[in-house]
Amino acid sequence: MNGLIDASSDAAVLHGTGNIVMEQRPVPVPAPGEVLVEVAAVGVCGSDVHYYRHGRIGTYVVDKPLVLGHEASGVVVAAGPGVDGSLVGRRVALEPGVPCRRCRVCRSGRYNLCPEIRFLGTPPVDGAFSRYLAHDADFVHPLPDALSFDAGALLEPLSVGVWASWKARIRPGDCVLVTGAGPIGLLAAQVARAGGASCVAVSDVEPYRLKLARRFGATETLDPVNFPAAAGTDGFDVLLECSGDPSAAASGIGAVRVAGRVVLVGMAPAAESLLPTQAIQNREIELTGTFRYAGTYPTAIRLAESGSVDLEGLVSGHYGLGEVEAALTAGSRDPRLLKPVVLPWTSESAR
Amino acid sequence: MNGLIDASSDAAVLHGTGNIVMEQRPVPVPAPGEVLVEVAAVGVCGSDVHYYRHGRIGTYVVDKPLVLGHEASGVVVAAGPGVDGSLVGRRVALEPGVPCRRCRVCRSGRYNLCPEIRFLGTPPVDGAFSRYLAHDADFVHPLPDALSFDAGALLEPLSVGVWASWKARIRPGDCVLVTGAGPIGLLAAQVARAGGASCVAVSDVEPYRLKLARRFGATETLDPVNFPAAAGTDGFDVLLECSGDPSAAASGIGAVRVAGRVVLVGMAPAAESLLPTQAIQNREIELTGTFRYAGTYPTAIRLAESGSVDLEGLVSGHYGLGEVEAALTAGSRDPRLLKPVVLPWTSESAR
Amino acid sequence: MNGLIDASSDAAVLHGTGNIVMEQRPVPVPAPGEVLVEVAAVGVCGSDVHYYRHGRIGTYVVDKPLVLGHEASGVVVAAGPGVDGSLVGRRVALEPGVPCRRCRVCRSGRYNLCPEIRFLGTPPVDGAFSRYLAHDADFVHPLPDALSFDAGALLEPLSVGVWASWKARIRPGDCVLVTGAGPIGLLAAQVARAGGASCVAVSDVEPYRLKLARRFGATETLDPVNFPAAAGTDGFDVLLECSGDPSAAASGIGAVRVAGRVVLVGMAPAAESLLPTQAIQNREIELTGTFRYAGTYPTAIRLAESGSVDLEGLVSGHYGLGEVEAALTAGSRDPRLLKPVVLPWTSESAR
Amino acid sequence: MNGLIDASSDAAVLHGTGNIVMEQRPVPVPAPGEVLVEVAAVGVCGSDVHYYRHGRIGTYVVDKPLVLGHEASGVVVAAGPGVDGSLVGRRVALEPGVPCRRCRVCRSGRYNLCPEIRFLGTPPVDGAFSRYLAHDADFVHPLPDALSFDAGALLEPLSVGVWASWKARIRPGDCVLVTGAGPIGLLAAQVARAGGASCVAVSDVEPYRLKLARRFGATETLDPVNFPAAAGTDGFDVLLECSGDPSAAASGIGAVRVAGRVVLVGMAPAAESLLPTQAIQNREIELTGTFRYAGTYPTAIRLAESGSVDLEGLVSGHYGLGEVEAALTAGSRDPRLLKPVVLPWTSESAR
Repeated sequence: MNGLIDASSDAAVLHGTGNIVMEQRPVPVPAPGEVLVEVAAVGVCGSDVHYYRHGRIGTYVVDKPLVLGHEASGVVVAAGPGVDGSLVGRRVALEPGVPCRRCRVCRSGRYNLCPEIRFLGTPPVDGAFSRYLAHDADFVHPLPDALSFDAGALLEPLSVGVWASWKARIRPGDCVLVTGAGPIGLLAAQVARAGGASCVAVSDVEPYRLKLARRFGATETLDPVNFPAAAGTDGFDVLLECSGDPSAAASGIGAVRVAGRVVLVGMAPAAESLLPTQAIQNREIELTGTFRYAGTYPTAIRLAESGSVDLEGLVSGHYGLGEVEAALTAGSRDPRLLKPVVLPWTSESAR
Repeated sequence: MNGLIDASSDAAVLHGTGNIVMEQRPVPVPAPGEVLVEVAAVGVCGSDVHYYRHGRIGTYVVDKPLVLGHEASGVVVAAGPGVDGSLVGRRVALEPGVPCRRCRVCRSGRYNLCPEIRFLGTPPVDGAFSRYLAHDADFVHPLPDALSFDAGALLEPLSVGVWASWKARIRPGDCVLVTGAGPIGLLAAQVARAGGASCVAVSDVEPYRLKLARRFGATETLDPVNFPAAAGTDGFDVLLECSGDPSAAASGIGAVRVAGRVVLVGMAPAAESLLPTQAIQNREIELTGTFRYAGTYPTAIRLAESGSVDLEGLVSGHYGLGEVEAALTAGSRDPRLLKPVVLPWTSESAR
Repeated sequence: MNGLIDASSDAAVLHGTGNIVMEQRPVPVPAPGEVLVEVAAVGVCGSDVHYYRHGRIGTYVVDKPLVLGHEASGVVVAAGPGVDGSLVGRRVALEPGVPCRRCRVCRSGRYNLCPEIRFLGTPPVDGAFSRYLAHDADFVHPLPDALSFDAGALLEPLSVGVWASWKARIRPGDCVLVTGAGPIGLLAAQVARAGGASCVAVSDVEPYRLKLARRFGATETLDPVNFPAAAGTDGFDVLLECSGDPSAAASGIGAVRVAGRVVLVGMAPAAESLLPTQAIQNREIELTGTFRYAGTYPTAIRLAESGSVDLEGLVSGHYGLGEVEAALTAGSRDPRLLKPVVLPWTSESAR
Repeated sequence: MNGLIDASSDAAVLHGTGNIVMEQRPVPVPAPGEVLVEVAAVGVCGSDVHYYRHGRIGTYVVDKPLVLGHEASGVVVAAGPGVDGSLVGRRVALEPGVPCRRCRVCRSGRYNLCPEIRFLGTPPVDGAFSRYLAHDADFVHPLPDALSFDAGALLEPLSVGVWASWKARIRPGDCVLVTGAGPIGLLAAQVARAGGASCVAVSDVEPYRLKLARRFGATETLDPVNFPAAAGTDGFDVLLECSGDPSAAASGIGAVRVAGRVVLVGMAPAAESLLPTQAIQNREIELTGTFRYAGTYPTAIRLAESGSVDLEGLVSGHYGLGEVEAALTAGSRDPRLLKPVVLPWTSESAR
């Protein structure tokens, strides 16, 4: 990378399902309140893969060419009007969602739920598989020296885990069950451990993921069909459902103690799903779901900087900007490739 | 009623499905910590009717003769060892569930979830359709003069409503949707109004129940299939689901604003039911269920005494102890008879 | 009032302690995101009086001419760039504090604590004792037809009461002690009642204020030196300290039950004051203080519109814009004149 | 130690200020619900020292001979009527406070605030500087093999730290200030670290205590007169005041960010003390105090067992039952002797 701004910016653009095209676009000019970022690293998320394959997620439809990628870090190379110039030259993580700040939801502090939020790599907002990116200066977080660009990019999924742990109100000594050992589950488990959970049990159908879970701090791994049944206060204090599988949610809830907490983090595949309503009632379980996160970046940075959470260990390979398609399909070729990272400042990259 | 204790106590005893038999039983002797209560009034609850008809509710099975009735008031006529004698002669409401007080659940203040709790009229514990009853003195609440025995009995379902409103964290100015306008829904709606809810919308399939709802403070009545869809912060702040109908829960949740709260009060008919998981996630709705209540009687008494909640208006008729069967079947003969009340000190009663 | 915008705007301007000067100023031009409001009614607050007399409140110093007044309602007469034109012609209440929306405090939903907040009538921001005012459109709340301009102005102190009740987590059936029966105390008491508090005791040193308190819903009035001592759960659930008198806070806390909540609303006169630390510890009382409010206007509007709170009853007289000085000194002439209201569209006003 | 119950039980009894007398007492017979414990280890607490020197703490007066000591572990040697016999032979920690379980405070889960609580070593209840002790079986917690008797005894002060961290709602990534580096402060700091606090700053006037603090996980040590001033969200998220010094509380609060939390753990020396009321208001700080703890033992055990908290490192020496006076005066002879531990089964003990 260098601080000189090229006249044009390469971008990997999704043109219809399964078709990524390299394009040259003008370098964006940062608007008032924005900075221009030279992108350093972008993690591939399951939602990127889903848009690439299916062209939509629920009501979000890719109906015109779109740049994917929302787990990003980089270097600020220019500041728009009204922005503190000292940001220029700083290594930063990009918080991808920029809310309107005006509506009642924003004013109440739940800006992740803002109906006007613009989120990188989500139609119709272009994302980070690009040489340069203009982004709101308030949603660009300076990286401590100790954090690499890879770690900076992965602060985004870490934020999902932090938000989930806040919603679950995890306390030191808690027993936490995490269902699903993909990147989100592994990060949620790490945050639970960092928050003092004495036992963190992780379940998944894939043995190699359970092995990973143990490496990332799980104190126990479980087969999803064989959870211990809760009885009174014996049971998990918290369930963090990170698989998106309704049956995992249902059987996980059956393992949660009376007055325990459940957070549905993994995106449910359908509008409705079967949940164990009677158990929720008879044990007065508190259940909620998460949609992204709000205000988590400072905490995520501290957790990563202090070493409480290992981000780089999740990275399964690096790809140049010309290899975005390879990065997006890596997981389908080898499911052990959990977190490909694209480095937009290279066209190819040794893995 | 009189203060003399008869040698024997009449009781209406359930002997198998649909068969109530009058029996004479010895007057109970209050154990240490207990008082003897001459029962004055007992409300008929849907669960009494269910035991009468089906002989079981879920895993609670009537496998030997059982006295039903758990919404009760009366007069303390004797005190067991260790009990403050000044209770004798007091008019009281009976909180029907007596927990173990020793387990971790009890020690944490959630005694309603105690696995050892003994609850009047729930197998294997005899209930209040009886002339006399021995009950733990700590779960007997003196009635203010302003409250009738009928009101004292109905503090029990009112407690369900108070507990639901606590779980929903209702605040002044909130908009609350109550689905189901049976006794519990009507009481939950009244507590919501008492708690300052500016709008309380009540839904039910039965028009006469909606009429009742308006009388008990609903600011609006809704057809269950036609809830307004929530959008951002436009939507109900709170849903109190009091019908037990999973489809009401599902469509009600669809009308709750982002970051709103949902409490499932009505007993779900099956272990699992379809819930709108994606809406819970995308709008970060907080959902929980209630199982009875804990610590609500002092509040319920204050609400009834201050006139914020109307209990007597729910009473649809009085029955003598010999008419328990008529009381239990009143609702099936005429669904408008919401809350029959048995007066065990009479054998017949004008309605 | 009329919708025509005069070429110049009269304003009552504070020029040094005790000196209000009428000035003609150009009508403000609404900036992007702002509306122009013709001011209809402005309540006089104790802080206005304090600035008028002492030229400062703590670190806020009036070091150049300042227009006071922050409890305001009016009519939108023009919309700046980017503002929905349908606001023009609407009767509105002005939420006086406009935060930066960018800092971490704003993003967390506590915008009242924003270090960059601009608040009407607080140095260096001009307030509402003026014919016209430009204000951020997001902080202008349309008034329902049922609410007068007087009520619209008094939504501001009502917001203080709503915020206090939220912080106190008042629940139906609670017993609440309000110390200080000035406008804030009387409004806090009303919100407590609206929120279902069964008993609301109000204390003040002035008998006529206690009389007012009873009119506004106090169930009991108390002499401040004679609070009932708390014992175990016997005691007030909540103390709302609205007098600013540290001795009221101290003795009020002594009347709060174990695990009760205390909110310090009245502005303390000094940086430090004596508080009953041991009682706070031994009874594990939760204490906090309030600084203005955030997100309360929609609730305040609903409470006033539903009639749960009486705002107009607080108004003690109307004054023209030329009589601001009389309005500011009314309370010192007759302490029963609790809430003078200035009507800037008249120069004099019958009282 | 051995499992044979001697006919008599030695006890170190406080007879007036500064006078410990060894006495032989009959071995207690466990009442229904109780177990007999052979005491293994008892930590010396500052309150023991205070009773020894001054004969009272506030309203608790030693007006007849009293056995001190409430941080205790041991072995169950007999079970009273109604107690599960499998406890006999178990190594246990004693939770010293046994509440009434009947009052409203107990039923609400705040049993530490029960007005009838009986607490070991607090007048008029004899404590643990004794060979044998009868104690309620529900307040005897089996020790995992990994925990020594010393650690078992120190679960009591650890519980104080756990309770403080719960009240402070510490979350991963928080910055926590602990004022006072005595045993409670060092344990509170460790719990904060275990709960994921990224920075834990500890202050004390004694340099050797700050050195200890660094050993027990402080990321920073501070001079109490030189706290960084908070500004907006820059400041500590949480203050755990563990010194009991009002000036530490006051200056600590000045270093807490807006909307931060403060827990007063150290016992205040006087009923009232000067607190920075305006800062509490202007920054809407939430402040509470703690009185012992409730429901913390299972968590404390898990934290100690998992190694998240180091208990044994606090022990500064062992004493026989005949050396209780030496143990009580160790700290005044050498303030570095933070936590003397008495082993009642020996009369002397090498240190």
